[in-house]
Amino acid sequence: MEETLLDETSVREMLGQYVSPRMVEECSRESFCFGCERREVTVLFADIRNFTAMSEKMEPMAVGHLLNEHFTEMSEIVFGHEGMLDKFIGDGMMVLFGAPLSRPGDTDRAVACALRMQERFAELKERWKEGFPQTQGIGLGIGIHRGQAVVGNFGSKKRLFYTAIGDTVNFASRLESVARAGQVIVSGDVISHLKAEVEAKKLRPRKIKGKEGKHTLFAII
Amino acid sequence: MEETLLDETSVREMLGQYVSPRMVEECSRESFCFGCERREVTVLFADIRNFTAMSEKMEPMAVGHLLNEHFTEMSEIVFGHEGMLDKFIGDGMMVLFGAPLSRPGDTDRAVACALRMQERFAELKERWKEGFPQTQGIGLGIGIHRGQAVVGNFGSKKRLFYTAIGDTVNFASRLESVARAGQVIVSGDVISHLKAEVEAKKLRPRKIKGKEGKHTLFAII
Repeated sequence: MEETLLDETSVREMLGQYVSPRMVEECSRESFCFGCERREVTVLFADIRNFTAMSEKMEPMAVGHLLNEHFTEMSEIVFGHEGMLDKFIGDGMMVLFGAPLSRPGDTDRAVACALRMQERFAELKERWKEGFPQTQGIGLGIGIHRGQAVVGNFGSKKRLFYTAIGDTVNFASRLESVARAGQVIVSGDVISHLKAEVEAKKLRPRKIKGKEGKHTLFAII
Repeated sequence: MEETLLDETSVREMLGQYVSPRMVEECSRESFCFGCERREVTVLFADIRNFTAMSEKMEPMAVGHLLNEHFTEMSEIVFGHEGMLDKFIGDGMMVLFGAPLSRPGDTDRAVACALRMQERFAELKERWKEGFPQTQGIGLGIGIHRGQAVVGNFGSKKRLFYTAIGDTVNFASRLESVARAGQVIVSGDVISHLKAEVEAKKLRPRKIKGKEGKHTLFAII
């Protein structure tokens, strides 16, 4: 497997699982390198509230069907906003903006992506209403943070994956766990990097597990 | 990509990233099916304590080097104990025993795997001592739980991955977060399924986030 990772066709195929076809082209043109580096990224985590509780009472095939429909729809939105689909974790997903390529407006696209994901999730629930009434108790929670992270290929000799690592990623994950169903929770660093106007509600400063002090968070409306 | 997932050579290559070569053979012989099903699994999570804090102060290439050396060594131990390397999450990893194939002694192998991982991690730290003295403050935390989960291929049309989903998985992840550096924390369900003798210390019953009541946990010695 190590050798095939260096083969151009394989790299392009692999990249195609992470980014849109257009970004695969751009990565190739910029003689894109997968070495580890520290860079500014915007990290989005999205997770389905109450999915596990619901899945415990469902037929396994139905669980797979719902989750795969959800992931397929959300991946398209991510690609449409030029995000990088980092990984799926249970019913959650991690998305990067600003890696492997940084472009102006990365943070704006992350927030627009999150809002579109919430809209689409509401549409999915509408679609599932009749066949899977138990889905009406679930909802999407999204957290976004921006900051420095180490990005590159991590993993074993047999299995490498491109991802971001560091406090920025952990903090984004914490914001997602703070988000209630339907909410998009972002950090002050996200707000201050937005170029477009957005409506946001400043929340009461709160403690975040694993981080010092209290943090001012915002819920995008 | 969808088509290639059904091609036998590709399936074997993909399987080779998850399980040992021997298990790839067995999976093929048993005309292994990747549909979703509910089954009894033993789930192991391992994560490096203080890795993020350490990585914030290091050269990105050094972070990649250390993490990839760690993951390569740990993957070999997982394969050696017939576990399935589910995924890497930051500096953590998720491993399944009992899926895709159940065999007698799955839970025993999970515990033996965890103990070997701790030993190897101590050896790695010894190896890193001179070149990377800052690694001396890190340590491996491991959590193991056993129970029912929905296993199968999840993901989008473009990117499917084999994994387990459900309360059992979430609970195993919580046990990992309880484990201090060097510890292997397991649930009562793990203890009651062990066929071999092991030395364990019963811990004081404690609350686990997202679960009702107090839980009796054990630290394997």
